[in-house]
Parts: sequence; C-alpha cells; structure tokens
Amino acid sequence: MAIPSEESELMASPAPLRVAVIGAGYWGPNLARNFKAAPDWELAAIVDMDRARAAKLAAAHGDVAVCGSVRELLDTVDVDAVAIATPAHTHHGIALTALRAGKHVLVEKPLADARAKGLEMVAEAETRGLVLMADHTYCYTPAVLKIRELIADGSLGEILFIDSVRINLGLVQPDVDVFWDLAPHDLSILDFILPGGLRPAEVSAHGADPLGTGNACVGHLTFALSGGGMAHVHVNWLSPTKIRQLVVGGSRRTLVWDDLNPQQRLSVYDRGVSLDAQSRSAAERKASAISYRLGDTWSPALPEHEALGQMVAEFASSIWQQRPARTSGAAGLRVLSVLEAVSSSLGAAGRPAAVTGNEFQLEGTR
Amino acid sequence: MAIPSEESELMASPAPLRVAVIGAGYWGPNLARNFKAAPDWELAAIVDMDRARAAKLAAAHGDVAVCGSVRELLDTVDVDAVAIATPAHTHHGIALTALRAGKHVLVEKPLADARAKGLEMVAEAETRGLVLMADHTYCYTPAVLKIRELIADGSLGEILFIDSVRINLGLVQPDVDVFWDLAPHDLSILDFILPGGLRPAEVSAHGADPLGTGNACVGHLTFALSGGGMAHVHVNWLSPTKIRQLVVGGSRRTLVWDDLNPQQRLSVYDRGVSLDAQSRSAAERKASAISYRLGDTWSPALPEHEALGQMVAEFASSIWQQRPARTSGAAGLRVLSVLEAVSSSLGAAGRPAAVTGNEFQLEGTR
Amino acid sequence: MAIPSEESELMASPAPLRVAVIGAGYWGPNLARNFKAAPDWELAAIVDMDRARAAKLAAAHGDVAVCGSVRELLDTVDVDAVAIATPAHTHHGIALTALRAGKHVLVEKPLADARAKGLEMVAEAETRGLVLMADHTYCYTPAVLKIRELIADGSLGEILFIDSVRINLGLVQPDVDVFWDLAPHDLSILDFILPGGLRPAEVSAHGADPLGTGNACVGHLTFALSGGGMAHVHVNWLSPTKIRQLVVGGSRRTLVWDDLNPQQRLSVYDRGVSLDAQSRSAAERKASAISYRLGDTWSPALPEHEALGQMVAEFASSIWQQRPARTSGAAGLRVLSVLEAVSSSLGAAGRPAAVTGNEFQLEGTR
Amino acid sequence: MAIPSEESELMASPAPLRVAVIGAGYWGPNLARNFKAAPDWELAAIVDMDRARAAKLAAAHGDVAVCGSVRELLDTVDVDAVAIATPAHTHHGIALTALRAGKHVLVEKPLADARAKGLEMVAEAETRGLVLMADHTYCYTPAVLKIRELIADGSLGEILFIDSVRINLGLVQPDVDVFWDLAPHDLSILDFILPGGLRPAEVSAHGADPLGTGNACVGHLTFALSGGGMAHVHVNWLSPTKIRQLVVGGSRRTLVWDDLNPQQRLSVYDRGVSLDAQSRSAAERKASAISYRLGDTWSPALPEHEALGQMVAEFASSIWQQRPARTSGAAGLRVLSVLEAVSSSLGAAGRPAAVTGNEFQLEGTR
Repeated sequence: MAIPSEESELMASPAPLRVAVIGAGYWGPNLARNFKAAPDWELAAIVDMDRARAAKLAAAHGDVAVCGSVRELLDTVDVDAVAIATPAHTHHGIALTALRAGKHVLVEKPLADARAKGLEMVAEAETRGLVLMADHTYCYTPAVLKIRELIADGSLGEILFIDSVRINLGLVQPDVDVFWDLAPHDLSILDFILPGGLRPAEVSAHGADPLGTGNACVGHLTFALSGGGMAHVHVNWLSPTKIRQLVVGGSRRTLVWDDLNPQQRLSVYDRGVSLDAQSRSAAERKASAISYRLGDTWSPALPEHEALGQMVAEFASSIWQQRPARTSGAAGLRVLSVLEAVSSSLGAAGRPAAVTGNEFQLEGTR
Repeated sequence: MAIPSEESELMASPAPLRVAVIGAGYWGPNLARNFKAAPDWELAAIVDMDRARAAKLAAAHGDVAVCGSVRELLDTVDVDAVAIATPAHTHHGIALTALRAGKHVLVEKPLADARAKGLEMVAEAETRGLVLMADHTYCYTPAVLKIRELIADGSLGEILFIDSVRINLGLVQPDVDVFWDLAPHDLSILDFILPGGLRPAEVSAHGADPLGTGNACVGHLTFALSGGGMAHVHVNWLSPTKIRQLVVGGSRRTLVWDDLNPQQRLSVYDRGVSLDAQSRSAAERKASAISYRLGDTWSPALPEHEALGQMVAEFASSIWQQRPARTSGAAGLRVLSVLEAVSSSLGAAGRPAAVTGNEFQLEGTR
Repeated sequence: MAIPSEESELMASPAPLRVAVIGAGYWGPNLARNFKAAPDWELAAIVDMDRARAAKLAAAHGDVAVCGSVRELLDTVDVDAVAIATPAHTHHGIALTALRAGKHVLVEKPLADARAKGLEMVAEAETRGLVLMADHTYCYTPAVLKIRELIADGSLGEILFIDSVRINLGLVQPDVDVFWDLAPHDLSILDFILPGGLRPAEVSAHGADPLGTGNACVGHLTFALSGGGMAHVHVNWLSPTKIRQLVVGGSRRTLVWDDLNPQQRLSVYDRGVSLDAQSRSAAERKASAISYRLGDTWSPALPEHEALGQMVAEFASSIWQQRPARTSGAAGLRVLSVLEAVSSSLGAAGRPAAVTGNEFQLEGTR
Repeated sequence: MAIPSEESELMASPAPLRVAVIGAGYWGPNLARNFKAAPDWELAAIVDMDRARAAKLAAAHGDVAVCGSVRELLDTVDVDAVAIATPAHTHHGIALTALRAGKHVLVEKPLADARAKGLEMVAEAETRGLVLMADHTYCYTPAVLKIRELIADGSLGEILFIDSVRINLGLVQPDVDVFWDLAPHDLSILDFILPGGLRPAEVSAHGADPLGTGNACVGHLTFALSGGGMAHVHVNWLSPTKIRQLVVGGSRRTLVWDDLNPQQRLSVYDRGVSLDAQSRSAAERKASAISYRLGDTWSPALPEHEALGQMVAEFASSIWQQRPARTSGAAGLRVLSVLEAVSSSLGAAGRPAAVTGNEFQLEGTR
C-alpha cells in the first residue's frame, strides 16, 4: 500500500482560502483582481464605507459579498483572511480588529502611520499565530527577485553603495510627506535584497517644501550599510522627468535597475575599482594598490509575471505553512522604523537620528 | 579730421598679454593650447619642475621659453600673468609669489587646498589690484551659460530643487576625497548660475569609503537654497556608469542638463506642480490649491565653442577692464568655503556644518 | 418661446447607436470595452462562432446578447452597426452581409485580404449610403493627430523623406507575411498624415524569409512622394529589439515620433539643410546655394486619451453626419492597393510595381 | 654561439618603412599623425598641390619633406609607400603613377570613382607584387573587429538580416551622391564581417533628391545575402538626428552596434525566433514549428585603441609579409562594384541591377 510522502501531501491542493478586500479605492481593485485569479484564493467579500463603490467592484467579480464595514464583514461573511487597502492611518485599527477575530492580514504599505502601532500589530499577530504580511509589491517583481538572488549568491560581492531614485511629477498630498509616500517602496526593496534586512543604526534625512504645501516634497535620505558602504534614497514629487532607478554598487560587479526601460531593466556591470585586499593596512593605503576592472555588461532576461499574483500566492503559502511571509509584518515594521527616524532627522534639521526598534527582532521573522 | 569714436578705440586691439603656464602635466597642455590660439594672449613660457616635460610642451607651440621654477620664470621672462595648473596644495605658494611679483593669476580648481589659504590669495590680489581668477571651466560652456541665462531671465521661476550628479569610474586618489576631487565642478557651476552665488549657511555631507582607501569615494552633500528649496550633489568614483547631469527644478519650468547627450544636452520642461500663490497661508494649505501643468519640452540649440577659449578671453578682458573675472578668486573662495564645511560635516558623522566666510563678501567680486 | 439654436440642436444627444462586435478574440474585447464606455453607443451583442468565447466577453459587459453567427445576429438583434474583428479573409463576406442588411460597418485592419474585395465593400457602402470605416486605430492617437496637424499647418514645410520602422520579435504567422501583418499600421498612418492621402504611383518591396517559414519575415518598402521626396517602411518580425519610430523630414523642420518613449514621444527639430530657392536651376545647383539651419528642438505636450475611444466616437459621428469617416473605407482601400503592389513587387524580385486603384477616388471619401 | 631563431628574426624590428601622405586636406592630417606615431613607419613627405598647406602639415611633424606634386615626390624623396587622401576622382591616376614607380599604395575610400579604374589599380598592384590597400578605417575599430569575430565563431548563427543606418545632417556635396559619400563605410564593414566578403549578385537602390541639389540626398539599398537573408543600408544627409547603427540578425543571436553610445556600443541579444530545423519542408511549414527564445543580453567590453593606428600597422605588416592587406584593393573593388550597381539601379528607377566583377576574385585577396 502506497503511503503518500510528505511532499505529495504538501502538493495536494487544499481548499482555497477565503479573503475579503477592505478598501475599494485605488489599490483595492488590483488586489481583488489578483485574489480572484489565484487558485489559492476565493474572493469572498469587498468592504468599503462607500457601499456603492464596494458593490461596483464586487459586481466585476461575480458572486462576491458587499459590506459597509469591517464589523459587518466579520459578522456576516466567513473569511480566513483580509487584505487592507485603506488609508494608512486606518491600518492599525482594522488590522487589530481582524487579527483579534482570528483572521490573517495583508496590509497595504506602509504597515501603519507610526512605528508603535506597527509594533502592536506585529505583536498581536505573533501572539495569535496569525500571518501579518506587508504588501511590499515590488519585492515580487522579477527584477527585484533577480537582484536579491544576485546579491545572495555573491555575484555583486560586498555592497559598496546603493542609490535609489524615485522621482516624478507626483500627487502632492495634504497629510503625508514625500518620504512617507514614496520611500516605503525603496525601503521595502532594500529590506528585501540586503542580506540582513534593513537595519541601519541611524539615518539622515534632508527635505524641502519649497512650494509651502506643509510637507516635504523633495527628500534625500542616507544611511550607512554594514561593511562601510552607504545607501542614498532620493524621492521627489516635483520632478517633471520620471526616474525609477536603483543602483547597487558591489565590490565584484555593479547592478543598475531601470524600471522604466522595459528593453533592459537590469544591467550588471563587470566594471569597477578594486583595492588589493592584502594592502588594506593604513600604511599601505596607496593608489598603487588600486586596480580597475573593465569587463562586460550583462542584462539577464527576466520572466514575465505580475508581481501581485506572486504576492497573493505567497500570502496563501505562508498561511498554509504557518511561517512568516517573505514580506512579513516585521519587514513592514523595519520600514516604519526607518521612516520614523527620517521624520526625526527632518525635525532636527538633518542631524542623524537613531533608528529605534532594531531590538525587536523576532526569531524567524525573516 | 576724423575723431575716433569711443567704440573704435575699444575695438582697437591692445598688444597681447604675455602669459606663462605653470605645470605641464594633465591640464597645462590644454591651457597652453588655448592661450596660444587666443588673439588676446601671447604664450611666453612653460614652467615645470620637470624641465624636460616643460620643454616638450613648449616645443609643440613654437617660440616659448622653458623654466624649471617660478623663481626662474619671474627672473628671466617678462610676463603679465601666470596660469597655475599644479597640484592643489601648491596653488597658494605659487599664486602669492606671482601676485607679489605683480602678475595676474589664473588658478586651476580648486583655488587652494584650504579656505584660509584661498582667503589670503584673494586678499593679496585685492590689495594689489590684480586679477585672481579661478579656472571654473564648466562656467564657460554653452550649456552652463544658457542655464545661467534661463535662471536670470526668470524662465525657470523660483528654484525649488537642484540635483547634480557626477559619477563614474574615477581615479581613486591617495590624497584627496571624492568631494574635493569632483564637487568643485558642481559647486562652481552652482555659484555661477545661482542669482546670489553659492552662499549656503550650512551643509550636510555623507560619505563612505567602502574599499578602505583612506578617503571617501562616494558622497552626497545637501544644503538649503534661499527661498526654501534644496540642493543635492552626488559624487562617486565607484560607479561603472558615467552620469553628468544637473537638474534645476523651478516654479515655472524645470531644466535638465545631460552633459553626455550631445544630441539633447539641455531640456526645459514646462511641466510641474504649482501652489496657488494666494493660498500660501497655513490655513489654506490644501491639496485643492495645488495644480499641475503639463506643457511642452524645449531643447535650445547651443552654439559650438570651446569653453577654455572663452575662459582665457575672459581672463584677458578682466585684466584690461580692471574688474573681477566672472569666475573670480572670490567665487573660488566660496567653493572652498563649502568644501571645508563638507569636510567638517563628514568629520561630524553627517551633522550639518556651518559654512564660514560668507562674511567675506568683497564689493564687486560678483 | 425659446427656439433651439442650431448649436443646441447639435448638442442634443441623440439616442445611442446599437452595435454588435463580431469576433471575440484578440481585438474584439478592446472594441467591446470602448463601445461599452462610449456615450454614443450601446453595446448590443457579441458574435463569435465560439459561442462560449462570445458569452464570456458579453458577461463582462452586463446585458449584452450573444450570437454564434452573423446570420443569427441579423435575425435576432436590432443593431445599427457592426464592428468586425475577425480574421482578414472573412472581412469581405461579413461586411457585405452586414451592409446588405443596412448596417454601418467598422472593419479591423486590413480592410480585406485583397484589393478587389475591398473595392466591392466600398462600392456596396457607397451605393447604400452607409458608413464603411476602417479601424486604423493609430490615426486616433494624440501623436498621429499632432503629426497630421503639424504637416497640415506647414510647420514641417514640404516633406523630403519619411522613414517608418516597426520591428520587434513578432508572432510569425502562417498565412500572412510581415508586410500584410505590420505595414497596414504604417500605411494607414501615412494615408492619414499625408496631405493628399496615400497615393503612390508605384512601390518597390524587398523581403526575405531566411527561416523558411513560407512568408517574408523581414521587409522594406519604398515609394516616391509627390514633390520629389521618398518614403521607406521597414517591417521585421525577427528583431530582438522593439522599435516603433516614424521620421518625417521636412524642408522647414523634421519630426521624430518614438512611440516607445512615453517621456518624449514627439520631437520636432528645427535643424536641417536648405537650398536657396532661387538657385534651383541646373546651372546654379552648387553647394554654395546650400545652407544649414541649427535651431531648437521642441517636444509638444500631448493630451492623454485612448485612441479607440476617439475612434468609436468618430464612427458614431460619421453615421449621424452622413459623411465618410476620417479613416474611411476608401482609406482602407488605398492601404490595400499599396499592399497588393507590395506583393507584386516582391513576386517580381523587387522590381517596382504599379499601384492600381488610384483611379478610384470617390468624391468626399477624404 | 647563439643562432637567432626564425621567430626572433621575425621579432627583430626591421627598419621603418618610409611613407608620403598625398593630400593635406581633411583626412591627410589624420594619416600623417598616425604614420608619425607608428614604430613601423617613418613619415617622409607631405604632398599637396597647395604647397603651403603641405608645409603647414609637415611642420607639425618635424623633419618632413614638402612636395607640390606626386612627380616631385617620386623624383626627390625616397619612399617605400604612399597614402592617398585626395578627392576620389584623382585616386586612379595617382595610384597608378605610384605603383608604376614601385611604391606600395594606401588609398582613402572609395578606392576610385569607377569600378573599371579600381580594377586597373588592383591589376597593376597584382602584376607588380605591390600592396594596394583600401583605407577602410572602420574595419580596424574594436567594435567591428569584435563583430567579425562573433560572426566567424558562430555566436550569431546564420545571418538572417542586416540593417545599417548612417544618417545625420551631412555636408551635401556637389559632385557625389549620398550613396557614394556614406555607403562605402557600410559596404566596407559588410565586406569585412561577412564570411565570404561582399558579393551580392544584384542590388536595388532607391534614392531621392527632394531639394533639387542634383544628387540623391536620401538613399536605401537592399540586396540578398547568401542563405536567404537580406541586407539593407539607409544613408541620409538630411536627417537632423544622427544615427550610426548596424544590426546583424542571426539565427542564434542578434547583434546591435550603436556607434554613438560609448557606454554600450555593442549589444548581443540572445533572443529570437527559431524554426525547428527538421520541419523545414513545405508541408511542415507551420506556426507550430516556430519557437521563441528569450535570453539574456550581453555587451562585451571593447579595448580602447585608435583604428587608424591599427590600420597603418596592418599596411606595414602586409608589405613585410608580402600578402594582401586585410582591407585589400580587392575589398575596395568589391565595394566599388556594389556602388556602381547602386548607380545603375538608381538610374533604372529602382530596378535591381547586377553587380559586375564577382568574376574577379584574385587568389588570396581574402
């Protein structure tokens, strides 16, 4: 008699998980579409205070319940998980309610609008053994997955510098500055690709609000990398040109990700400066120990898949396997910690500000 | 009897000025070639401690004297001016010697390797009524001249942000960091194009030396602009890609100078974000007061001329007209002041450092 | 009593026209979506031999009838017009059936798979006073509309040369060559932007089938423009790089449309070569009469709108106003005429082939 | 007693060859500079009818004779070789005179202004055992050398298509059309990189002279490649944008050379369309046999060297080794043969014209 192996049991498809999308505004429809299309998921409900908006989104996906509040959802629809795509200041309340009702939770970035709130969310999920996942969508794009792989397998060597630029004519927002609006993308990507995650001891941030909108519209943030390198992030709502570019300079190779160049998104340069390792003593620090490498450029082919599809699949996998998601609540919290330090530094005229919370490093959260 | 008009007198060419080029290394040959070709100048001597090197450069230009030292030059050759293209730490000594001998002086960037030395040089020239000019070559390129004009005539409006990037696989140098090597270009350009010159109250600098060369190889510096905007300069010796780009974001238009794109060096974008001027009170700071402008892009044709030729012509004009040069010693000093503050900030782990010397604002130096 | 002015009468919305989309494959869903969204139209039915495919598309748009054949459509659903998005060889049969049933007809490009068939379709529509429109979608993009305007208002001057490149890794097709697959786009655009439409006397075509697929996969076609200039079209299924670029060189300015550069789709160069007009006699043809113009580059802002939306609006307008559509059946026929000549030239090893059908120039078809 | 090995004898530098540069106009100075710098050569004389112009060029290079005519050169200066950089219509006369005087000859492109003249030059050199070399400079650039290598070693597979574009605002010339001015570059490159050299049976050319200058200013030429592929060359004097690009599409990989992109001159795409080789029968020609390959892109690092330096070195080597130069007179003749066919095709309104002279294939000339 054949006994199923553990693997084949894992392979056997369990029944789809039931999920509700909370928030039918800008991002909710994308989540709904991807949950609908995923074999792992059954889209069970759309929730929005604007019930008409919820109903319209639900109608596009067939037999889906419509709720006007989270309370109504929890009272009337049986779901395993919720996906929160509401304004940032509401994430904390909704997530805690859902977690306390035993639901797994996916949260749109940023995890919350304050580190303390995020910490409470992570702790609640941890206590209850539920998955709390941050929707760091970029981390599921083929480009970022490839970058992570190239760093992890040593192709780039040690990281010497990182430069992330995310600028365009952006929607100036009344209640959030350009750091909190755009930098979560950059920071969540860095958290994902850096071997130890995003754990700077302190950050410096410089911003400007030259139009007098009440919030910084242009910003630069820098922090030291372990190993002596540095990272810089430039976010800007006022630029008429659109740039989304990440450079990861390594001791072996340097990688450039130009997200707006579909014909050559990733370029890996086998060019650089080297210092003879044996002469790294102060006495030997001389130009003569420096050499230059002029090698080929390589642009790896990337598979075509939609990042959100991978993300909802990971949400399901992490629930089934009872493990933290790849972009876990803890990852979202690390991003929040840096954002709070950014605000502190901004408030202190650019003086470096300590990043709190690196003490909070749950076992297994990455 | 015909009386010469004032104009024709001005038009009458005076006898060419006689100049010696000091330093026959990397930059000296460029200066020699341009002085040789200029109608205003007579190239009288080449000076280099390596007399053979001086002789070789002299030979390429016909009847030119060769000297092994500045002393020998002053003793044996009759010159009106000297052009100093030696290492930065020697500028101060050579310039003072020449000024004290009554010579006008052109100095390669940076003006000196310390602000105090530059100050002494400027004071000496001022006292003696001699021209002390900084060779800020970029300020004589067609692109920078056009940028200055577009800012001065209001085409860009108020300056909201500046982003200057100068990165490539650079010659890592043993005795100077990447800020002192590359940023003088960016800072001298900013000094030239900003209506009031380069006068930040303080700057923040963040650098890294991930290869352990003894000096920062990657650097970011930021400072506030008058009017609420901010400037950022990125210099980097470790980048396998070469970028030389300046963005000047204005309230009316935004300009991008891409020096490595000969087919479209300057682009002026009539696109941007505006805040209704009348609602700039705190109470009215609302997204509703913000509007977006989506206009044309324009790339002005630029004349073709060599910057160094314009620069040596300006040196002659400033001598004849007994006025400060466009890129005066004072301009060089403003650049030095910022560089010293950069070093202070770097030494203070990125804390903002005050820029000294803004008290030194000679009449007429700009 | 108020009498409605002519304008307000025009403004009064008539009842929407009822349309069926025939063909639920690749393009049909795009047509359906745009008819559904248009105030001028009511999407009444989806027709496909694969009834399940039709039903799926219909379901996405609410209350829409499903038919398995054109016959069934005409027998059971009341429509004013049909939009045909089926394979090219079926256009003729379906269009004639629909026209004979009194329906206005929109046809996917190319109008038919042979000129004679297209001619019959145009004649049938003409006889019956019905609109026969070619879905030359590109002609409704903001870029092409702007190009047409710049040519019509004389901004470019006389057209000296045209170069249209449409290459990428294409779907090699078993029953059509690269000219019939891709060149209809280029030819329909040229028909739209050239003041007199696309009416070359003859064309030369050169193609290759280096993989032995049975059809040309790489092709170049050239023809003379009235006025002495020439046009060239390059189509290619085998290119790993994707280029969609049209250059229109004019005696006053030259325009480049790079459809894959969203940040600067259109560039207008005020640069060029001029010949002194008064010296255009043979005796005076000398280099000395030639001058060069080095002016600015200008990139006009383009409005954002979906081309298909404009196209279906034009279909409605042409029906209401009882006039030929901007991309009329006659325009489609001109494209077919050139394609047939291309095939003739290809069959004659590249010898120029006459374009028939320029005798067929219906009044008012443009 | 040590006996020198054959190798060391070969290595022993022979005395430099003595060369005269004939023509001190645009290109002559470049040749003079490179001969002067080459260890293999001694620059012995400059020849120009404008003796002052010759003298000026000679003066820049030290002890070099000045002649006003080829006759004077041959009578008064002892040279091994001459380099001809005069107008094309004078090449034949000067070259024959020099060859008959026993001199090796390097000729600026094109070899002559008519195929018959070129043939006579090649025959004369052949008879006398002298080197006749065409200055196909591009063939000595790192990029073209690499392209030749990638084709020769099978990296690209079989060549499916070639597209060469050379357009910019060019100097419209009174006595030559755009094909004879620009296409020699493209054709000499193709001759160099195609495994069998440039030997089309016939070519088609289409040109236009929309300004009425008397010569074609815009041109397209096409011809079939052995193996079923095709080549296309676009030359244009009227384009405000400058493009110098060669695409070589292969069955295994496709190469793009963008000569104006110094940061990525060569790109090799491992992307393409394949046809299952075993199904290349007519019966099996189906889309199902076609597959698509989506691989990486690779940009090889290229060494930095000046092409002209390599070219003059090859001239010396071919003389010493008594072998045809890599860009031999026969290569120049093949280019001429195609250019004459181009003119024939142009004169026949674009009908394909046979390329004569493929019967003339000297042993060992490639």
